[in-house]
Amino acid sequence: MVAATLPGKATHQHTRAFNQQLVLRAVYDHSSISRAEIARQTGLTRTSVSDLVGDLLREGLVEESGRGPSNGGKAPILLRVAADSRHIIGLDLGESAFSGVVVNLRGQVVRSLRLPLEGRDGEAALDLVIELVQALRADSQRNLLGVGIGAPGLIDSDRGVVRWAVNLDWTELALGPLLEERFGLPVVVGNDSQVAALAELTFFRRPRPQNLVVLRIGRGVGAGVILNGQLFQGDGYGAGEIGHVAVDGLTGRCRCGSVGCLETVASMRALVAMASQGSPEVVDEASLFSSFAAGDGTAREVALGAARHVGRAIAGLVGALSVRHVLIVGPVAGLGQPWLEEVRSTVRQSSLPVLATETRIDFGHVSDDIVALGASAMVMTNELGLSLVR
Amino acid sequence: MVAATLPGKATHQHTRAFNQQLVLRAVYDHSSISRAEIARQTGLTRTSVSDLVGDLLREGLVEESGRGPSNGGKAPILLRVAADSRHIIGLDLGESAFSGVVVNLRGQVVRSLRLPLEGRDGEAALDLVIELVQALRADSQRNLLGVGIGAPGLIDSDRGVVRWAVNLDWTELALGPLLEERFGLPVVVGNDSQVAALAELTFFRRPRPQNLVVLRIGRGVGAGVILNGQLFQGDGYGAGEIGHVAVDGLTGRCRCGSVGCLETVASMRALVAMASQGSPEVVDEASLFSSFAAGDGTAREVALGAARHVGRAIAGLVGALSVRHVLIVGPVAGLGQPWLEEVRSTVRQSSLPVLATETRIDFGHVSDDIVALGASAMVMTNELGLSLVR
Repeated sequence: MVAATLPGKATHQHTRAFNQQLVLRAVYDHSSISRAEIARQTGLTRTSVSDLVGDLLREGLVEESGRGPSNGGKAPILLRVAADSRHIIGLDLGESAFSGVVVNLRGQVVRSLRLPLEGRDGEAALDLVIELVQALRADSQRNLLGVGIGAPGLIDSDRGVVRWAVNLDWTELALGPLLEERFGLPVVVGNDSQVAALAELTFFRRPRPQNLVVLRIGRGVGAGVILNGQLFQGDGYGAGEIGHVAVDGLTGRCRCGSVGCLETVASMRALVAMASQGSPEVVDEASLFSSFAAGDGTAREVALGAARHVGRAIAGLVGALSVRHVLIVGPVAGLGQPWLEEVRSTVRQSSLPVLATETRIDFGHVSDDIVALGASAMVMTNELGLSLVR
Repeated sequence: MVAATLPGKATHQHTRAFNQQLVLRAVYDHSSISRAEIARQTGLTRTSVSDLVGDLLREGLVEESGRGPSNGGKAPILLRVAADSRHIIGLDLGESAFSGVVVNLRGQVVRSLRLPLEGRDGEAALDLVIELVQALRADSQRNLLGVGIGAPGLIDSDRGVVRWAVNLDWTELALGPLLEERFGLPVVVGNDSQVAALAELTFFRRPRPQNLVVLRIGRGVGAGVILNGQLFQGDGYGAGEIGHVAVDGLTGRCRCGSVGCLETVASMRALVAMASQGSPEVVDEASLFSSFAAGDGTAREVALGAARHVGRAIAGLVGALSVRHVLIVGPVAGLGQPWLEEVRSTVRQSSLPVLATETRIDFGHVSDDIVALGASAMVMTNELGLSLVR
């Protein structure tokens, strides 16, 4: 039993692999960088850096990008990540459609595709995943690193198994192994909100925060939790599942089977449903946004009420984890700054003042592709070790 | 900026130090163990293990403890931690008294001392800490590893600074550096609830859980969060400060300055105050426990109400972190199993069923010394690397 929790031994090979990841990450975190600067930042000797950079050049992951400014002597050669040396397929198994992208190492989208779900679940939904990968792979044969999948529900990312995805009627589905066998590529599977957090960390945040909570509010409510520079999934892989934590005083039945979940008052689905009862012009997310912006009483009451619930939930996370960076992503960003201000002011009132003042709450990157990008980031993390920490 | 978040390079020296910690931890996690078994558990070669064990024997940290059962050949020599080869001073800066222990490497208390606080704060409270360390050090000259301090409030453990301890009127007090200079010993400072979690992890839990939340309910309410085998403190060092997260519907003013904190209804202080209003026989914790056990209506209402608030808070943590092991420590354990059952049933109702069923909630180790023990564990962790993870 104890052996299972002991970390593995360190060997010279580990040391070399570790240092190579260190160098790759230093290059990745800059648009361009010299060998001398890599040595300075990593603490490795210049000889080691030259040696390790040589390997990365041979693998094609890194390329030269001209010369930097001279400090008197010869101008140093600059290095950068060869963005298109590898491509990755990232999927987002969303609620109304399965969508996918082919991205390069910088998260730039090379191709994208969207297949409507049309109520499919079980085997039929699985077939749609296969169709999507096949289509995306067809014209992306060049150096595919692998396939990443962001799926709803509880996902065991170590085994690539969807433990439970209620909408898709999947239970203990070995999605990763199944696709790996079919396509002969590495496949990683992660919870959609968790991988959205990885997208922010990998592609959009510089300097990379050590700790980051990314709240995703769309049809559902979920979060991804980055701790010590890595996605934290927890014993049950459900870290960030705050949408299904009961809120005091709420009595609505949730689609998860419980009562009073945050999702029942803070998801876009709930907001549209509640606002439409008082404001006939609210029929979907877009009309909710415009009614809210126009000052419609019901829309404001419903949306700001949700903001306060979201604020309480964030205060709980700040209290539990003492994180300083919180991002909110997903369609809810359509409610804009007035909504965000209500969230912020609730967090200030609901947590230890000294922690609350240090916490920054912002909207994250606005993109329909954030889950698919995050799924790609997960592949990069696994295959290239880009999120390594000590 | 980026450099600050980059992990350090790995060198051969690091590799050796890492592997030595691996061996020490394997020995530490067993009452006795053979070199062959260490090799099996760590994945190191027998030659490396013999070499590294040799160092540990020379340093006196490990000793031989007889021979194990033979597997046909020569019976193997067994090794164990030389429990008394090092001593550690651990302090608990409690609310009514500062107490301290001298413990060995197994957390066995060699000596303890308690100095009543009598309302002191500021400089006077600092003098009391110095008096306590002096007294405990006087007859513990043998191989003192260092001094660990569990203090209330927000503690920057990296710098040994008490950022904010409202009861003691300390703000940005460099307690660690100050005592290090005075006593010439390593001094580490941690939040009291956070170090209580370390005590559980280091001394009382086998196998060691990877992730563990320890909720401490006494005069206040706080938690310590162990993630990936290590104490997680967060950007602001306030991880686990759930006592000061606002609870929906509560309006009481908290001593932290906010309104509606969990502490205002779930701390022992709050329980005694509330119960005493309906039951004149409740005057302190002991009488609350007996009234609760005797079925007194007010005592039950107040205590079970608190259990539900605590259950909601735990559900929030389970949702945020997906941890499977939750322990509750501190005086509240005096309320016993009926109280714990109310907590458990609330957690079941308030979190995603599939996560709730996997979560174990128990009382932890019952000891007045848990904070002082945890402070010692923090010293061991820092000086001997006992909690290393990859």
